[in-house]
Amino acid sequence: MDTFIFILEIIGTIAFASSGAMIAVEKKMDIFGVNILGATTAVGGGIMRDVILGVTPPTAFAKPVYILFAILTSTLLFAIVYTTPDILHSKIKNKIYDKIMLWCDTVGLGIFTVLGIQTASRLVTEDNPFFFIFIGVLTGVGGGVLRDIMAGETPYILVREIYASASIAGGIVYVVCRSSVGEASGMLLGLGVTVVIRALATHFHWNLLRIR
Amino acid sequence: MDTFIFILEIIGTIAFASSGAMIAVEKKMDIFGVNILGATTAVGGGIMRDVILGVTPPTAFAKPVYILFAILTSTLLFAIVYTTPDILHSKIKNKIYDKIMLWCDTVGLGIFTVLGIQTASRLVTEDNPFFFIFIGVLTGVGGGVLRDIMAGETPYILVREIYASASIAGGIVYVVCRSSVGEASGMLLGLGVTVVIRALATHFHWNLLRIR
Amino acid sequence: MDTFIFILEIIGTIAFASSGAMIAVEKKMDIFGVNILGATTAVGGGIMRDVILGVTPPTAFAKPVYILFAILTSTLLFAIVYTTPDILHSKIKNKIYDKIMLWCDTVGLGIFTVLGIQTASRLVTEDNPFFFIFIGVLTGVGGGVLRDIMAGETPYILVREIYASASIAGGIVYVVCRSSVGEASGMLLGLGVTVVIRALATHFHWNLLRIR
Repeated sequence: MDTFIFILEIIGTIAFASSGAMIAVEKKMDIFGVNILGATTAVGGGIMRDVILGVTPPTAFAKPVYILFAILTSTLLFAIVYTTPDILHSKIKNKIYDKIMLWCDTVGLGIFTVLGIQTASRLVTEDNPFFFIFIGVLTGVGGGVLRDIMAGETPYILVREIYASASIAGGIVYVVCRSSVGEASGMLLGLGVTVVIRALATHFHWNLLRIR
Repeated sequence: MDTFIFILEIIGTIAFASSGAMIAVEKKMDIFGVNILGATTAVGGGIMRDVILGVTPPTAFAKPVYILFAILTSTLLFAIVYTTPDILHSKIKNKIYDKIMLWCDTVGLGIFTVLGIQTASRLVTEDNPFFFIFIGVLTGVGGGVLRDIMAGETPYILVREIYASASIAGGIVYVVCRSSVGEASGMLLGLGVTVVIRALATHFHWNLLRIR
Repeated sequence: MDTFIFILEIIGTIAFASSGAMIAVEKKMDIFGVNILGATTAVGGGIMRDVILGVTPPTAFAKPVYILFAILTSTLLFAIVYTTPDILHSKIKNKIYDKIMLWCDTVGLGIFTVLGIQTASRLVTEDNPFFFIFIGVLTGVGGGVLRDIMAGETPYILVREIYASASIAGGIVYVVCRSSVGEASGMLLGLGVTVVIRALATHFHWNLLRIR
């Protein structure tokens, strides 16, 4: 189980670090800014979760491995774009690149949502599903909110179709199913629901109600 | 006393949720963004207070009722504007609407200032008036600062005439008077001072010194 | 030692308060906005550090002296510019003023980096250099990040040449040297390294890699 969670954590870290690093690259930040924004996106949600749960120091500071992976990912992406800057301007950019970025953000959202719930239920004995799901959503969206605010953008969560709602749906599925299907399967199920809802919403341009 | 505090909390929650939700509506966010910004404004200051005081998990997460009221308020406001969008563009908008928004923000500011002080003095035994007032101001302005940063605006507190100063004045009055007039009356007095100062400042266009 | 640390804290507080206050002045904020931004810049990094380390309430709230110095500094600067507004528009402004602002920010960065490490090592018994340096950088850059986000600017740390890297270098020097040269000398050494690197980088326009 520990290995399973660690693998999820690393995948989520790499996915979110990529999304933060690439926004920094697009904004022409230097290699350090790219690393800072990548790392902030990757561990920001987890730090918020730990601060809320009273975990001191937060895991991201106590165990350097996550920030290390975030920095490796960010530096690698910077190196790729630095050596082949045409990547950002080529015709294929709009199609493939945007799709990759969307997947990184979506996978990170799904993974950190279930990881947040998992951490909260390990630390808080009282069974409070509402609270667990909230912590999950905070963990899932926190890094992206910091990323967008630092980059001077309106946070994704406020303007993108079906973003936090996908995270909430995945969280509910995990919390509801885990007693019957087990922790690991419950996490994969919740993560899958978040990713599928967000992917479908993007593909079919589902939108939530909006004032005209 | 508990009932009295709970009623204040709910009024403050509804007032701040309205101010956050309407800014989201004006920015053409979807129903989810409206709920997120409403809830963040309503519980943001209290979460900052609890993190500073070491209350884990913060009350907003442990007791869902506040977020629930924030969501109900935001969804209701969204529904009203969605069904009658002319509200935002009619002639009366500037007059009445702006006034309502100002009152929501002002009432929330006053209520959360005294609630912050009340929570701090319950949890911290040492009598430190400076610290209590600071926590009060943080609780009062915190949600609005988050709202403005997420909405991409310069925080109210930095640019509006007599904003944090009204909160500080109300906090001082509460802290000074409560031993003589009692907790509940002290809170109403402090809250009243904040609201009256801010209302007068807006009505008479009082301004603090500013570089020309 | 306590006196030495206190003197560093006050110098850092004044330096960062100045940098925050002057940005508020440039943005034409009123006297209260200037004080809020000055105080937030001065104590923001320390509050983040204390929240991460589980120090409740954070030192800035428990001991009013730091916020008091920040307010005195901000009010004094406001008064100077208010009485002689030409300062901001004179020919000499670009040369001297920008240099003073840079030094304030640099000295604050250096001081709060070593102070953050010092606090972390006092509170956390386990010897984790990586963690200490991280807390140091967070303490050093935290106030400036809040200042920039509240002022609506892209955080310095993301776009300025050699900013967080100077803080990291100073932090490493302090952590490595303190066992041999002692705490106080180690702090001065680390602080010196941060300041010198940042000063040299600005003078010679050193830049980190950046996508063209």
